[in-house]
Amino acid sequence: MLTTDQMNEGVHFLPHDAPDLIARKLLRRNLSELAAMGAEPLGYLLTTALPQSVDEDWLRRFAEGLRADQDEFKFSLFGGDSSSSLAQIGLTATLIGHVAPGAALRRNGAEPGDNIWVTGTIGDAALGLRARRGELNDETGFLTQRSLLPTPRLGLQLANIANAAIDISDGLVQDLAHICKASGANAVLWSHLIPVSPAAANFGEAMLECRMTEGDDYELLLAVPPDKTAALIAACGQLQITKIGHLTTGAGKVEVHDPSDKTLHFAKPGWSHF
Amino acid sequence: MLTTDQMNEGVHFLPHDAPDLIARKLLRRNLSELAAMGAEPLGYLLTTALPQSVDEDWLRRFAEGLRADQDEFKFSLFGGDSSSSLAQIGLTATLIGHVAPGAALRRNGAEPGDNIWVTGTIGDAALGLRARRGELNDETGFLTQRSLLPTPRLGLQLANIANAAIDISDGLVQDLAHICKASGANAVLWSHLIPVSPAAANFGEAMLECRMTEGDDYELLLAVPPDKTAALIAACGQLQITKIGHLTTGAGKVEVHDPSDKTLHFAKPGWSHF
Repeated sequence: MLTTDQMNEGVHFLPHDAPDLIARKLLRRNLSELAAMGAEPLGYLLTTALPQSVDEDWLRRFAEGLRADQDEFKFSLFGGDSSSSLAQIGLTATLIGHVAPGAALRRNGAEPGDNIWVTGTIGDAALGLRARRGELNDETGFLTQRSLLPTPRLGLQLANIANAAIDISDGLVQDLAHICKASGANAVLWSHLIPVSPAAANFGEAMLECRMTEGDDYELLLAVPPDKTAALIAACGQLQITKIGHLTTGAGKVEVHDPSDKTLHFAKPGWSHF
Repeated sequence: MLTTDQMNEGVHFLPHDAPDLIARKLLRRNLSELAAMGAEPLGYLLTTALPQSVDEDWLRRFAEGLRADQDEFKFSLFGGDSSSSLAQIGLTATLIGHVAPGAALRRNGAEPGDNIWVTGTIGDAALGLRARRGELNDETGFLTQRSLLPTPRLGLQLANIANAAIDISDGLVQDLAHICKASGANAVLWSHLIPVSPAAANFGEAMLECRMTEGDDYELLLAVPPDKTAALIAACGQLQITKIGHLTTGAGKVEVHDPSDKTLHFAKPGWSHF
């Protein structure tokens, strides 16, 4: 099982971000993709493109971040390539993961009637990014932390429980649309069921669209048949897991309803790839 | 077998280079690394970081280049990630290759007494880069072509012939030093034995250092015991293969001798990674 993801200066991180956290987020974004496939990490390849402004101290702290997460998630650096860059830092990691035969989770197995579940809380990272830019006040630092250092949901045993899975990187609505399109189904989400952390709840419904569409949460989004509900909850143990909607027949559309069943419309469903 | 390599605008290619050739060189740099391991390509992952200046036409031509080499070398795109970039284009490919058990070539198996052989001709790409910059006149276009579109030396059956192999990406002297350090041996090269193309020969000995140290040729450098010489030549078929030196006892040093046995000194052995 292979997955690859990149982080580019000015796009995925800010120039003054701590190098160790940049390294760890690079690995964790990829670890989250392995988690969404039901895989465990074995090792990774790393390419770095670094401008002359990057000094020894930056490199030392970047390497410390890599090592911290290699130790925490028990995998190792297999190889890679380093290069110079004209202006911005560019980083790509390719993770090699293992999954037992038949245990891989896919995006295209969801069926009408499945419930939609999500781990953890949604929208913290989007608010945390605003806090890092000085656009809102993150009193406890919780939102900032969720933006800088996501927690990949590795190790859940969901092989015979979830019909489909994806991690929320682009945004809840858009990533759910990926499952819907791959599986050939529509989805209905209920806005009032989306799990919100206490820190995010402080900002109220004004931030609903931002929480639902901006991604970077690295929580798992799962399509689970109703008769597997108890097994799902047992598999998640202490991890918060919340039912937020269900799948219907259709061809890939996602609708978000408010408590009065009115359909909400967002300017964009999520992060747009170029 | 995995290998990863990157190409960054302004470092590995020039802004006005043809997008299809950029795509093909990205793949071929990685294919060359597989060739040096004795592997055949199965597929690849691609990450692209593209600034807003990249338009639909550029992307179409880039995709055409990928497809051309996928068809030529019979492997396919498995997945990847696309992102925006603030200023420069950044590209990384990770290739997945197959090698039969026991048939992998390594860098660390060379032994004192082995001869050093090289495929093709050396230094064309370094001169071709100068031609692309307008610094020298490449009448036939051969050198430019060698710089833009290298030929990975895939498909040679060298498993029981070469004790060590590497592809020349950083520069002949430096890449040979990688073999020497990994294997625990010294090397002696003879400058007059280095194979030179007719187009490169036009520029005479003034360009010797540039040809020996600037890399980007993607020829194979092999350490082969004397009793495997006939097998090596047979395995290479129509492909030019030239003996350029030998290994001695030592700890990783490379010496380049001229025909009078005088040791030549170069300012730097090859491309320096940051």
